[in-house]
Amino acid sequence: MGRRKDNSMFIYPEEYGRLKRGPQVVLPKDIGIIIAYSGVDKNCVCVDAGTGSGWLALALAKICKHVYSYDTREEFSGIAEKNRRMLNLDNITFKTGDVCKGISERNVDLVTLDMPSSEKAVRAAAKALREGGTIVGYLPHTEQVRKFADKLGKAGFSGIYTIECIVRDILVRESGTRPSTKGVWHTAYLTFGRKSANKTQ
Amino acid sequence: MGRRKDNSMFIYPEEYGRLKRGPQVVLPKDIGIIIAYSGVDKNCVCVDAGTGSGWLALALAKICKHVYSYDTREEFSGIAEKNRRMLNLDNITFKTGDVCKGISERNVDLVTLDMPSSEKAVRAAAKALREGGTIVGYLPHTEQVRKFADKLGKAGFSGIYTIECIVRDILVRESGTRPSTKGVWHTAYLTFGRKSANKTQ
Amino acid sequence: MGRRKDNSMFIYPEEYGRLKRGPQVVLPKDIGIIIAYSGVDKNCVCVDAGTGSGWLALALAKICKHVYSYDTREEFSGIAEKNRRMLNLDNITFKTGDVCKGISERNVDLVTLDMPSSEKAVRAAAKALREGGTIVGYLPHTEQVRKFADKLGKAGFSGIYTIECIVRDILVRESGTRPSTKGVWHTAYLTFGRKSANKTQ
Amino acid sequence: MGRRKDNSMFIYPEEYGRLKRGPQVVLPKDIGIIIAYSGVDKNCVCVDAGTGSGWLALALAKICKHVYSYDTREEFSGIAEKNRRMLNLDNITFKTGDVCKGISERNVDLVTLDMPSSEKAVRAAAKALREGGTIVGYLPHTEQVRKFADKLGKAGFSGIYTIECIVRDILVRESGTRPSTKGVWHTAYLTFGRKSANKTQ
Repeated sequence: MGRRKDNSMFIYPEEYGRLKRGPQVVLPKDIGIIIAYSGVDKNCVCVDAGTGSGWLALALAKICKHVYSYDTREEFSGIAEKNRRMLNLDNITFKTGDVCKGISERNVDLVTLDMPSSEKAVRAAAKALREGGTIVGYLPHTEQVRKFADKLGKAGFSGIYTIECIVRDILVRESGTRPSTKGVWHTAYLTFGRKSANKTQ
Repeated sequence: MGRRKDNSMFIYPEEYGRLKRGPQVVLPKDIGIIIAYSGVDKNCVCVDAGTGSGWLALALAKICKHVYSYDTREEFSGIAEKNRRMLNLDNITFKTGDVCKGISERNVDLVTLDMPSSEKAVRAAAKALREGGTIVGYLPHTEQVRKFADKLGKAGFSGIYTIECIVRDILVRESGTRPSTKGVWHTAYLTFGRKSANKTQ
Repeated sequence: MGRRKDNSMFIYPEEYGRLKRGPQVVLPKDIGIIIAYSGVDKNCVCVDAGTGSGWLALALAKICKHVYSYDTREEFSGIAEKNRRMLNLDNITFKTGDVCKGISERNVDLVTLDMPSSEKAVRAAAKALREGGTIVGYLPHTEQVRKFADKLGKAGFSGIYTIECIVRDILVRESGTRPSTKGVWHTAYLTFGRKSANKTQ
Repeated sequence: MGRRKDNSMFIYPEEYGRLKRGPQVVLPKDIGIIIAYSGVDKNCVCVDAGTGSGWLALALAKICKHVYSYDTREEFSGIAEKNRRMLNLDNITFKTGDVCKGISERNVDLVTLDMPSSEKAVRAAAKALREGGTIVGYLPHTEQVRKFADKLGKAGFSGIYTIECIVRDILVRESGTRPSTKGVWHTAYLTFGRKSANKTQ
């Protein structure tokens, strides 16, 4: 039953703090949207870049077959590795490397990009993905969204689609029910695309 | 590879329409939040009520061990069953019955409630859940949120937490980048709670 | 030209801090919505309760003929009076009193209510308003919205209408354009109604 | 009393339809924010471009001393003029002309720009404004926001500030209280700036 406790890692905000985090992490709201919109399942193989504190990679590993997580910065794999052990997950491989220069894996179902200049990794991602596989860019700024979406179009992706997910906390108290006065307004935009048949080379 | 295509069911809005839907379905945005915040994984067993068109049950089945989905209305299991076959999932059991009167399963990891008067199912859900398991109410109105949250408190749940998830479509066009002028503003509030040790009887 | 400087009081957030404030003030976003949705102009007479720090009363006085601002708590008129002098406005009358027990003015164009149990002031507001005049409740909680809207209906108001105004700060920086990560999520709901002919007694 | 009825023009959505409208109008939510954040009052003179259907110009005329409203397209002044007569306002002057080529007025308190390439009108607006006067750009796309904000900075404006105002309709019904499922998500961003002393030439 020990492992069972790990299931609750994403009850937010109570227990989220158990995992180590660097300065920036992908929050559960965006992790949830990536999972639901990409439709990944138990049979899926994912590539994630960059690793950061590993929250997205770990969340994907909990529900997918295997996750390969790349980061150019070696120091991050330490934090992510600690988090991996804490969650007792053995289906995740941390790799130090630059996905813009190439992704070794092939026929993967999902590539997630949370890194500067994500648009530079689109070609490598297209090679790594199976037909119909999903690419997702995690993009804080609108200028990045435009560059990334434009690059997806040029690389032959279809169903290019950008959303922003906003989660409001609702307080239910003796004094009444209302949204919290303050909260996280923005993390990043998520831009999705699907690899089409016979369009990328 | 046939099954692989099913992975893409949640690229929204392009392919969502493949599944049959009744008048109301739980949208991917809320499905994603339920998955990420409850932290369910490949080892989890879930109970879902009501089935409706089965979208939430099917999404959970894609990533969990088994899903038991209840509905009092027999006509819905037909739609949900068609959707189950389309997605080729065999780890979901549709049951006709009222979860307010009892849930047969025990030691489950997640109970999701999308039904009128969800608060009446809290006691049965508490019995079905393992310690540390998560309950989620999908609640369109604020009055329901209050009733449900109050009932969770009385039934000994901890970490009671309500959110609203809003997804904005962002248009990236030749003329410029901006949020879509119109969109889905509200589906339902999600109220979460966790079964605490030694608190429910 | 001295007075001219006062015009800029509402450039937010730079200069808002010039005015004294108590623990709670009506923010410019809500002031703007009240002005635009009620359609008040230079010929209008307004009643405001409660005064608080006077921000709403002062903003209305800047554009209307006269404002009568009530508060049951005498200590607030001091802060509001200081703010009135700072803005050099002479068309505002601060009154200590409970609007639930009666409003002396008649034929007014707008009654704004920012106080506990606003619904108890609806009858008095109906007497004070001209036909077609607007009532606005500033209501933090959903339970208050329901009580207030119900009371408006019983008192014969028409066009009963509730909104929530959310203002997001957008950052435009060298690094890119994006919404601010944090901000004010919620102040209060605004419920509007119009006094109909021959319906209130 | 005839004029009094006009006060209610902005109760939205019930009576908004009384005025003629072209394909695009500035909605009351944005009008309210412009009024509250610029702090205009009864003594203010405003310049507005482009006129369009005149909604913004008319709303400003209701509360300010005088409004000069420019549009390059002559056909719009017809609609705006009809609306002016319907509201019985005599303190508004419609002008056909391109504000990018110059604004005749001087020492004005507010310049509002709702037109393509608003950034091209910034220099002329700076000349027209008094020190401390406010400029507002109504800008649908993020690319326009960046261009406009950059231009304000170069032209010596201070307090440059961008917001997005979102108004959610809240339904209060027998069945419960909740946000409307659909609504207007986006109209435009509003970028504000103030003319500083000794900075523009």
